[in-house]
Amino acid sequence: MTIRVAVAGASGYAGGEMLRLLAGHPEVEVGTLTAHSSAGTPLGQHHPHLRSLADRVLEPTTPEALAGHDVVVLALPHGASGAVAAQLPDDVLVLDLGADHRLVSADDWSEYYGSEHAGTWPYGLPELLVAGADGTVTRQRENLAGVRRIAVPGCNVTAVTLGLQPGVASGLVDTSDVVAVLAVGYSGAGKALKPHLLAAEGLGSAVPYAVGGTHRHVPEIAQNLRSAGAGPGRDAVGLSFTPVLVPMSRGILATVTARLAPGHEDAADAEIRQAWADTYVAEPFVELLPEGQWPTTAMTVGANTALVQVAVDRRAGRVVTVTAIDNLVKGTAGGALQSMNIALGLHQELGLTTQGVAP
Amino acid sequence: MTIRVAVAGASGYAGGEMLRLLAGHPEVEVGTLTAHSSAGTPLGQHHPHLRSLADRVLEPTTPEALAGHDVVVLALPHGASGAVAAQLPDDVLVLDLGADHRLVSADDWSEYYGSEHAGTWPYGLPELLVAGADGTVTRQRENLAGVRRIAVPGCNVTAVTLGLQPGVASGLVDTSDVVAVLAVGYSGAGKALKPHLLAAEGLGSAVPYAVGGTHRHVPEIAQNLRSAGAGPGRDAVGLSFTPVLVPMSRGILATVTARLAPGHEDAADAEIRQAWADTYVAEPFVELLPEGQWPTTAMTVGANTALVQVAVDRRAGRVVTVTAIDNLVKGTAGGALQSMNIALGLHQELGLTTQGVAP
Amino acid sequence: MTIRVAVAGASGYAGGEMLRLLAGHPEVEVGTLTAHSSAGTPLGQHHPHLRSLADRVLEPTTPEALAGHDVVVLALPHGASGAVAAQLPDDVLVLDLGADHRLVSADDWSEYYGSEHAGTWPYGLPELLVAGADGTVTRQRENLAGVRRIAVPGCNVTAVTLGLQPGVASGLVDTSDVVAVLAVGYSGAGKALKPHLLAAEGLGSAVPYAVGGTHRHVPEIAQNLRSAGAGPGRDAVGLSFTPVLVPMSRGILATVTARLAPGHEDAADAEIRQAWADTYVAEPFVELLPEGQWPTTAMTVGANTALVQVAVDRRAGRVVTVTAIDNLVKGTAGGALQSMNIALGLHQELGLTTQGVAP
Amino acid sequence: MTIRVAVAGASGYAGGEMLRLLAGHPEVEVGTLTAHSSAGTPLGQHHPHLRSLADRVLEPTTPEALAGHDVVVLALPHGASGAVAAQLPDDVLVLDLGADHRLVSADDWSEYYGSEHAGTWPYGLPELLVAGADGTVTRQRENLAGVRRIAVPGCNVTAVTLGLQPGVASGLVDTSDVVAVLAVGYSGAGKALKPHLLAAEGLGSAVPYAVGGTHRHVPEIAQNLRSAGAGPGRDAVGLSFTPVLVPMSRGILATVTARLAPGHEDAADAEIRQAWADTYVAEPFVELLPEGQWPTTAMTVGANTALVQVAVDRRAGRVVTVTAIDNLVKGTAGGALQSMNIALGLHQELGLTTQGVAP
Repeated sequence: MTIRVAVAGASGYAGGEMLRLLAGHPEVEVGTLTAHSSAGTPLGQHHPHLRSLADRVLEPTTPEALAGHDVVVLALPHGASGAVAAQLPDDVLVLDLGADHRLVSADDWSEYYGSEHAGTWPYGLPELLVAGADGTVTRQRENLAGVRRIAVPGCNVTAVTLGLQPGVASGLVDTSDVVAVLAVGYSGAGKALKPHLLAAEGLGSAVPYAVGGTHRHVPEIAQNLRSAGAGPGRDAVGLSFTPVLVPMSRGILATVTARLAPGHEDAADAEIRQAWADTYVAEPFVELLPEGQWPTTAMTVGANTALVQVAVDRRAGRVVTVTAIDNLVKGTAGGALQSMNIALGLHQELGLTTQGVAP
Repeated sequence: MTIRVAVAGASGYAGGEMLRLLAGHPEVEVGTLTAHSSAGTPLGQHHPHLRSLADRVLEPTTPEALAGHDVVVLALPHGASGAVAAQLPDDVLVLDLGADHRLVSADDWSEYYGSEHAGTWPYGLPELLVAGADGTVTRQRENLAGVRRIAVPGCNVTAVTLGLQPGVASGLVDTSDVVAVLAVGYSGAGKALKPHLLAAEGLGSAVPYAVGGTHRHVPEIAQNLRSAGAGPGRDAVGLSFTPVLVPMSRGILATVTARLAPGHEDAADAEIRQAWADTYVAEPFVELLPEGQWPTTAMTVGANTALVQVAVDRRAGRVVTVTAIDNLVKGTAGGALQSMNIALGLHQELGLTTQGVAP
Repeated sequence: MTIRVAVAGASGYAGGEMLRLLAGHPEVEVGTLTAHSSAGTPLGQHHPHLRSLADRVLEPTTPEALAGHDVVVLALPHGASGAVAAQLPDDVLVLDLGADHRLVSADDWSEYYGSEHAGTWPYGLPELLVAGADGTVTRQRENLAGVRRIAVPGCNVTAVTLGLQPGVASGLVDTSDVVAVLAVGYSGAGKALKPHLLAAEGLGSAVPYAVGGTHRHVPEIAQNLRSAGAGPGRDAVGLSFTPVLVPMSRGILATVTARLAPGHEDAADAEIRQAWADTYVAEPFVELLPEGQWPTTAMTVGANTALVQVAVDRRAGRVVTVTAIDNLVKGTAGGALQSMNIALGLHQELGLTTQGVAP
Repeated sequence: MTIRVAVAGASGYAGGEMLRLLAGHPEVEVGTLTAHSSAGTPLGQHHPHLRSLADRVLEPTTPEALAGHDVVVLALPHGASGAVAAQLPDDVLVLDLGADHRLVSADDWSEYYGSEHAGTWPYGLPELLVAGADGTVTRQRENLAGVRRIAVPGCNVTAVTLGLQPGVASGLVDTSDVVAVLAVGYSGAGKALKPHLLAAEGLGSAVPYAVGGTHRHVPEIAQNLRSAGAGPGRDAVGLSFTPVLVPMSRGILATVTARLAPGHEDAADAEIRQAWADTYVAEPFVELLPEGQWPTTAMTVGANTALVQVAVDRRAGRVVTVTAIDNLVKGTAGGALQSMNIALGLHQELGLTTQGVAP
């Protein structure tokens, strides 16, 4: 079986990482690559690290260019993928790396993105816990088999969700006052030419941004925590979210804390730890590290792994979780490839690794 | 007036930074420099960046070597300064850069440091707010004039305290559930030869440590917030504290959040912001940045400044403050020099700058 | 076919990278892992990024532990592998990542390493040009088929050799006065706990070492350039070699310059460029970049590629070549795996990639 | 005495560093600050690390705005300062941080900069050796007293010149085949918004540029080496020059090698070393480090020091020198301030330090 995959927006970081992984996928043939202002130039000019594809020439992003593929990956600016997707056949698997189809609530979308909502697609986080009205908990993976449209999650969203959801689904933590602070690498900010993204500015510095709850990933995280059992209402989740750019090219380290839920203040450490262990014991890409070992972003570079650790701070009355991912792999292109595998009925680990490139 | 200053423990990062600043202080003459295992070697072997002192030879740390100075700086490992200080004359100004004399509570000391408490010295954070029983608020500066023993605060403690105390003293924030996550440079971890402190391990990675409330700075921060008005009891402050090493040699960026206090949930942004502005309007080394501008560690490198910004996240119901300092300057040696100036009746800004070395 | 591979010295950076690659090799089964002081501890404690092998326990390095494997990789300190290798059966393929068996000249060995020469093994640089007495030029690859002992080259050696040898074999450059300056990442310095290898020291700094021709890679580079056609005598090659540690965890960027050879001063740029193009046109892992594009280390992270560019500086009368590699992949473990594939008659690209992990 | 200093082009890195130093100069009052596209905005928006000047508003760069100052610093793009300087009174001291007035040869200028030559000003490198026709060697410092126009050297030029000139003036080294490779921090590339200057691209990478002798600093270095004694003709100096961007915000580490001059091949190490020692023994800002200690850029951050070391590689027949400077201080603004002090008859060390900010 050979799957032909086209990538729209191949000149950006997300598109480039998608190509790095696709080039190593045993069942995939890389098809058309498109771009906007870079159309007509060779890929090697934008991603010289992708040697096997360096001579590929980027085409303009048109329905014709994207036709004739089994899978189309949209690595476009937020707000741009809706229009392109609308022109693609229903039987083609479309993976949207942008935000356009992630949010269920049109109000959330318009409030944080300010444009018209393009609609909601199946959410591409296979490990997301889905709490049913009857108290059962399933996983989003089950909702991805056979689908032809997938909204790939935001990178910060993936890190925060995977770190906290076991406590939510188990009812052990209170979601009304969650605090998340993330150390984020610069590739997460994209290739936009902005002064604060210059190396001279970032080297040797820690730079907070979107402080005070304005980051667009806030409603998406809340949506996921509600899925995991926080309850339906918008008020079910209170989240203080602060990302901080630090001098690394890749990686997200998410420190997420939440109070123990009322009635569970005295839950034993072992019981709390067990909730995380049980959630991820069968997951190939999400792992609770051995007790006492804390994740670092270096452990995950180039890998599709999310590494998690949890501790209870009795004096503070808070559970503290730390999650490390590679923002471009598990946080974007790797997660997308994993969801593609599931949607197409392939082994979900095809073309992905759990070994990080370290040191 | 010439002040002769000796530095015990001159081979470490704190001692080296103290010397960098002392060498530029108009009223100071650098006296004896001592070390333990490095005794007998020239300073230039340990701090080649300090050219004017490179040929100074380190002596063993003895009362004789430290005699005959107006000021003695102790830059020794935690637990070591108590014994040395006990042998120094009462009329010599002793600045302890270590933790030995910071904590008021012997219980806190034994719980977090595990040795016998060496006693409490006047606390060297001039800008610390001191809430009186009668409701008046003074500053620790007033308690430093003329003293001959000063306990210099921990670097992380200074960042978290300066960031949050205006909200505490004004009663606007609730101290029962404070969450602090810090991005910390490697010089804060000292010169100890540990595998996780190697450049190969730290470059390109974000590395959490002392997660779950075990960091020794926790009780010191709580002590300061109680001073600022959180109330006397140990339960008056709940603090979740997580430091994360990031790839920079210097700097601390402290993101600190706390809920709005009961009854103040509807306080206007302007009112909240004013509390921070009023607190620091007259302080030369602590500054609330213009609205919308967030501090970065690069702004403070080499300077004695603490740069603060505050915002209110209405949806999360939390005040978010971010504070940037140079851990070795305002966080250690600069703060010590400022306190020395105050204790000796000099202008507190002597030998210190507010201009950071950036980019 | 399944190849059982043991790794001696699995706790170090070279051993860890070997395991990262072996874990992804389709024909390999990772066998026994050994260590010295770390024997008895799980691999995950030393290489937490290698998730699939994290629970493997390290055994002491003994002939018994290494018995029963098809391949044994020696990732031991220089000077230690000779003794271990002597105890291994002749029919086992032994890959020595250390220097012990690289040098042909016992004098070179004793002069630069100061111990007794362990003997010379087939040299594991498949792309090395071998100039015959009859003027024919072959490649070292031909000498690796079927061998059972391979000396893996030094990382800096690989970068400098691949960058310059096309000019040597073609006779276009003069090898009597070669100058090489390398920007080197910290993983190249290993895991030794030395003060100058601390993150606090390396971050934001450029640090030269082994300046003045004392680096142990000097005689090995000269040996290779003689192989490529510089001529037999020790005086055939003059080399000024200076490595500089820069703040990155991986990577070597080698800038190598040499004068145009007498009689070739007027060789056209195109002719010179063609010598490099011809040498590497059929090599899967060494590539001359398109004219005008210069290699960076980021392009090669995690990949087995050596990226080369060449220019002629007419005013200086020198050819300038720049070569980028990942010191742990093409510079060590990847090159070793490639040679293993060749020795065992497998496709040389098995388990290796040309796609770098960037940005 | 109070010197009023205006800075034209205050929003860039060179202008910002000039202001950092001017703010600490005891005799200086910072006057008008101008900019081009940033006119009308506060300085704090561009240089938030300069707290004492943060509220200063940038004015358009006009003769009126720059009038009424004792000193005017031009921190403008190459090619722009000539026109502005022409409008300034003769009795005002003008420091040009740009390249416009550095080169003596109009041919060199037009060849490397492609515009019309603005003329040559006294060269602002006080330590530059000036070999007279009669064999005497003086220093450029003597030519700066009382001048009213100063061309500040290029940062790379300063590093290479100071590292090699003792060998040139002493006749010990041959200047016909000099090879220089530099590790350069990103602030040296300025604030221009170019993709390869993004943090995501630079972090974890080494990036060569202007390879093959095309860098504009080449003719300026040759001019200096001729001044130091290489002889008058353009052919007197052969220079291979390669700069490599490495992940640090500041600093230049220049590795410069040259062959021993004919007749001096057997010069003793001590004699060679003495040439460097004698040249810099009385210089406050240029220092030959103790034998065996090599400079690093971290030693010089924020300081006006150039740290030099020299060794002889007998096998290669080359002298190897390594020089470290802070590109923005000794390489630009600090060197300018030093020259300003000399021109105005002040102590040359005023407002400058030899202590680096490290680690």
